[in-house]
Amino acid sequence: MNSFGRHFRVTTFGESHGPAIGVVVDGVPPRLPLDVAAIQTELDRRRPGQSALASGRREDDAVEILSGVYMGVTTGAPIAMLIANRDARPDDYRELASVFRPGHADFTWQAKYGVRDPRGGGRASGRETAVRVAAGAVARQLLLRRGVRVLGHVVEIGGIRAERFDEASLGSSPVRAADPEASVAMVHAIEAAQRDGDSLGGVVAVHARGVPAGWGDPVFGKLDAALAGALMGIGAVKAVEIGDGFALARLRGSEANDAPGPDGFASNHAGGIQGGISNGSEIVARVAVKPTPSIARPQATLDLAGAATTVSVRGRHDPCIAPRLVPVAEAMVCLVLVDAWLAQLLVEGGAAG
Amino acid sequence: MNSFGRHFRVTTFGESHGPAIGVVVDGVPPRLPLDVAAIQTELDRRRPGQSALASGRREDDAVEILSGVYMGVTTGAPIAMLIANRDARPDDYRELASVFRPGHADFTWQAKYGVRDPRGGGRASGRETAVRVAAGAVARQLLLRRGVRVLGHVVEIGGIRAERFDEASLGSSPVRAADPEASVAMVHAIEAAQRDGDSLGGVVAVHARGVPAGWGDPVFGKLDAALAGALMGIGAVKAVEIGDGFALARLRGSEANDAPGPDGFASNHAGGIQGGISNGSEIVARVAVKPTPSIARPQATLDLAGAATTVSVRGRHDPCIAPRLVPVAEAMVCLVLVDAWLAQLLVEGGAAG
Amino acid sequence: MNSFGRHFRVTTFGESHGPAIGVVVDGVPPRLPLDVAAIQTELDRRRPGQSALASGRREDDAVEILSGVYMGVTTGAPIAMLIANRDARPDDYRELASVFRPGHADFTWQAKYGVRDPRGGGRASGRETAVRVAAGAVARQLLLRRGVRVLGHVVEIGGIRAERFDEASLGSSPVRAADPEASVAMVHAIEAAQRDGDSLGGVVAVHARGVPAGWGDPVFGKLDAALAGALMGIGAVKAVEIGDGFALARLRGSEANDAPGPDGFASNHAGGIQGGISNGSEIVARVAVKPTPSIARPQATLDLAGAATTVSVRGRHDPCIAPRLVPVAEAMVCLVLVDAWLAQLLVEGGAAG
Amino acid sequence: MNSFGRHFRVTTFGESHGPAIGVVVDGVPPRLPLDVAAIQTELDRRRPGQSALASGRREDDAVEILSGVYMGVTTGAPIAMLIANRDARPDDYRELASVFRPGHADFTWQAKYGVRDPRGGGRASGRETAVRVAAGAVARQLLLRRGVRVLGHVVEIGGIRAERFDEASLGSSPVRAADPEASVAMVHAIEAAQRDGDSLGGVVAVHARGVPAGWGDPVFGKLDAALAGALMGIGAVKAVEIGDGFALARLRGSEANDAPGPDGFASNHAGGIQGGISNGSEIVARVAVKPTPSIARPQATLDLAGAATTVSVRGRHDPCIAPRLVPVAEAMVCLVLVDAWLAQLLVEGGAAG
Repeated sequence: MNSFGRHFRVTTFGESHGPAIGVVVDGVPPRLPLDVAAIQTELDRRRPGQSALASGRREDDAVEILSGVYMGVTTGAPIAMLIANRDARPDDYRELASVFRPGHADFTWQAKYGVRDPRGGGRASGRETAVRVAAGAVARQLLLRRGVRVLGHVVEIGGIRAERFDEASLGSSPVRAADPEASVAMVHAIEAAQRDGDSLGGVVAVHARGVPAGWGDPVFGKLDAALAGALMGIGAVKAVEIGDGFALARLRGSEANDAPGPDGFASNHAGGIQGGISNGSEIVARVAVKPTPSIARPQATLDLAGAATTVSVRGRHDPCIAPRLVPVAEAMVCLVLVDAWLAQLLVEGGAAG
Repeated sequence: MNSFGRHFRVTTFGESHGPAIGVVVDGVPPRLPLDVAAIQTELDRRRPGQSALASGRREDDAVEILSGVYMGVTTGAPIAMLIANRDARPDDYRELASVFRPGHADFTWQAKYGVRDPRGGGRASGRETAVRVAAGAVARQLLLRRGVRVLGHVVEIGGIRAERFDEASLGSSPVRAADPEASVAMVHAIEAAQRDGDSLGGVVAVHARGVPAGWGDPVFGKLDAALAGALMGIGAVKAVEIGDGFALARLRGSEANDAPGPDGFASNHAGGIQGGISNGSEIVARVAVKPTPSIARPQATLDLAGAATTVSVRGRHDPCIAPRLVPVAEAMVCLVLVDAWLAQLLVEGGAAG
Repeated sequence: MNSFGRHFRVTTFGESHGPAIGVVVDGVPPRLPLDVAAIQTELDRRRPGQSALASGRREDDAVEILSGVYMGVTTGAPIAMLIANRDARPDDYRELASVFRPGHADFTWQAKYGVRDPRGGGRASGRETAVRVAAGAVARQLLLRRGVRVLGHVVEIGGIRAERFDEASLGSSPVRAADPEASVAMVHAIEAAQRDGDSLGGVVAVHARGVPAGWGDPVFGKLDAALAGALMGIGAVKAVEIGDGFALARLRGSEANDAPGPDGFASNHAGGIQGGISNGSEIVARVAVKPTPSIARPQATLDLAGAATTVSVRGRHDPCIAPRLVPVAEAMVCLVLVDAWLAQLLVEGGAAG
Repeated sequence: MNSFGRHFRVTTFGESHGPAIGVVVDGVPPRLPLDVAAIQTELDRRRPGQSALASGRREDDAVEILSGVYMGVTTGAPIAMLIANRDARPDDYRELASVFRPGHADFTWQAKYGVRDPRGGGRASGRETAVRVAAGAVARQLLLRRGVRVLGHVVEIGGIRAERFDEASLGSSPVRAADPEASVAMVHAIEAAQRDGDSLGGVVAVHARGVPAGWGDPVFGKLDAALAGALMGIGAVKAVEIGDGFALARLRGSEANDAPGPDGFASNHAGGIQGGISNGSEIVARVAVKPTPSIARPQATLDLAGAATTVSVRGRHDPCIAPRLVPVAEAMVCLVLVDAWLAQLLVEGGAAG
């Protein structure tokens, strides 16, 4: 299952240290002037090697469009995008091929397939998310034409929470937090963990503004269910909340209900989704990002033969993946929303027809 | 989108106050002796009218098998199951047809489709989950033959948490909590909210034991992503955690990683799933259940014409839906797991072939 | 795989001699006034017991709508339709349970599933097509609103060909041929075969008028490929032609090409489909219907234990199924076309959005 | 819709004169030693520039594997394959960009999408089938391990029929006919048409030997329906027969039924498929291939502005496409069969589980 989406159908391929990773996007409407630079900008937000806090792998992540675009305009044919792996160092992983790195997919991939590409996690690498970002950037262009804007930011790292949302400060935060003071504290926390040969987790929020009421489905294709599946499908994510999420479990109905009024809803506990369908309020999702499993500290594990051993994962890894996960989470939200938009075209166009 | 699952394909239909609700289950392997009484037992766990804490609607929820079974054995043909709506009282909803009940799908369904069956929420009613339970009960029978057991319980209501897991006490808890003392406190909290014309939310946990390593998919069909989508697809659920969930965001890598050892994993922070694939440990998911939106207290809202008004929802409603959500959450987990089992047959059978 | 279609999604269930057969139609646009009588009219065209040339089984095939319609109008929820089996006579098949009827699915179903409902072919019975007709009748209503009309007729039985198309005569032809003289000869041929304890095959044509240019897909979802798959999916069909079909293999390019002109295409060898996409001309498909396999004449076969034996299939069977296949073929064409219409809404709505 | 198959999922992309064409194959079982040379051999059978009877375009069609294979063995990850377009000559099509070539998808693609890549038909080019052949070659390797062999040949060109099947002669026939005398006559017929600035059609047969009883589905996923859809999905194909096809319409039931016996079926009128499921006999399909629409003779048509004009299509085209269609038809049959094999793993594995 390497495809995602129903109408806007994304299929990804490629391994971390193979020749390239890529994506085929099927279902892109024709006659859209495709902004390739905007796709590259999103890829640049995700790519490694940008700061001391991120993996030192050097990839330019230059996207090549192989199909589906003619004279700068989409044709209705599938858009294939390719990103070469330039700084692959498969040899770095030679010694790791014989042990299961704790917290990684090594053990489970081997259990599932009975064979494994050990070079940097192979297909299970976070590198696969680069092409999700590329596909999401195409979706984002379609959404922007509908007035929908998707924005993610880090709201917590290592227990330090952003207490305010100063959007203007977001661009200068190395951890993509919108609270300048918290941002500084988060950086220090990451550096401290790194010094300890350890890593940190965090929480990322994604907002979507401008989604009209009516997107999503009432039963199995609920918009919040689609978002939850999409966001939990990002490697390090282990929890998803919509709106107030777990806090809703502690409210009373009279507190939790969002009352519709002539000027919109009076509150947004539901995160913009009721009964699985958008209500016109801002859509809000939050995800928990576990700490990077690759750490320098020695950890107990098994080797391929099943014997107990110890491993210390050096290589090039982000001590906290939350900041780099922001554009990936945004991309997944864009993919879900563009699919919901197309599904709603069927409802509205079908009823009008 | 009224279908769920890829290989074990469930399609549901029916409204709360129409003649019947039903489900078609496609992809059930042949030659399974189908235990219809076991399906009925699951339905009985979910159905209304069982206690003072639950909706007073009286439905026997008797399931009728229309196809796919011959001489007590599945034939490989789709299994259709029908449940008649006997205690439908569409007249109860006459006055509600002209207002949007806060916290319900009324407003969003209208925005999406431009038309609405107002009788008890129509298709958006929790009643639709009865047939999910029926389908899940078929899945459960297949899982039990593989040694997989799925068990849910309430771990929190109105801020009161179950502090221990005493499985033996579960059957006698009216709120399906496995902590007898907490259970009593939860009942009192629900009664207090009900007296106030209000409602409570809660948290439900589901465990799956006996799942072998290797189920799930590494990229888009991650087992945790599938569980998150399935559980968030239950009406009142607004958050999902796998394993330690949000708590993982506050751990360091050295604390969060589950180390594989000769006798299994030393810990289970990941809730039995790594890289989207089961690792052989117990699978653990938790969901936040929002407070029942139907409350007797007057609430501000809009009428169909868009004018501000007030509504008090009387009718027959559970003041806290978490206990009745337990069998539904179990059913969704069963559906996800049986699908993952079948997907793994393709991998293993394909490699052997 | 008991589902058909991508956007207009049809799922059928039920066996010939079980309690009922049924269908769930998902993806029907909301706000369509559903004409239930028109659905029943289509079912009446297909049902048995209408003439001496058809099976003597007496079924009223009365359709019951279980969901998806409120106050006569579709709501966007799935439409479930049920048809009770009233004249089921499972005992008629008791002796047939132990032999494989030649030309039927008995042998292959057993080989596939290792178990079989022998009552009248179970799920493999032509009776399953009744609910396809019901679903097709919903699709037809949507198509008629777009000006698309689908019409089928018999063009050949037992080697006797209809030489002209007199649409007015179609209603009075017991074999649904639009050539009154050929119709009489076809009836005599069927009667002669029946007297011999034998059966006949035939050819059915289906035309769709009013399909605009642009429906269908250029690569895998070609409109002719979808039609071929849909029509070959009817039990007795063993060949499908679009436009001139096999005759095209004997033409030169200069003869076969349909030249576009200011007033439309100058010819229609392609049957209204070029490159998998409709071109605005009439769509024409023809299918070969094999002779009914159930014949009174003794035939060599195997019993369940694998021993050679002889079988004479008496029961209630049509000596030539082609006439009753006409509404089924029309239904399948309607399902394909309505799906193509919805797919084109995504293209056009997406480009406009 | 640029994907094909359910379990063995093929997604293609690319245009005739873009940088490359490609395919992603998802669902390939792990641990298969992939024979890349065998894939290249199939591509070489299809590629242009091989004889005076075929297009003069010079492509080496060298396949590059981008993912899914590690140390020569499949890993369970999707296999992406890329073929560069080396001899693209987009300028050849400059003048054709302003007219609709009769018999091509030019007119219909424009009607559907409102935009068009005119370079050699863009995505609607036969070049797209190269990557289907690559994917089919992977499927073929899986089938060969199960003892299934798929073989196609030309049985008719320009009205000249192959009267016998001499498999040994197939390799030396420039038109891929297994009757040496007919092969010579076919070559002469093609040369004569070419001299006239015209083209010919033909008929291709595909056989599959070794398919066990039990593959295929009884209702919508019938094996013959899947084959019909797959084969009609090849550009120039306008008709499909299974087994005796249209000839069955002229037989009586006593002649048409294939009687099962202790040593297999006594005849094979059904082409190895009964009730949509394979019966263990050889599977036989035949397709009608229309004459190549690109001809040098002047033809009436429209220009983009809707005015009548005349076009003479010179460029590099096969005067009869049937011979080069043989490996494509084989590939589509392989894709259908491997999918049916995997589906049957679910039935058998599920029943055993």
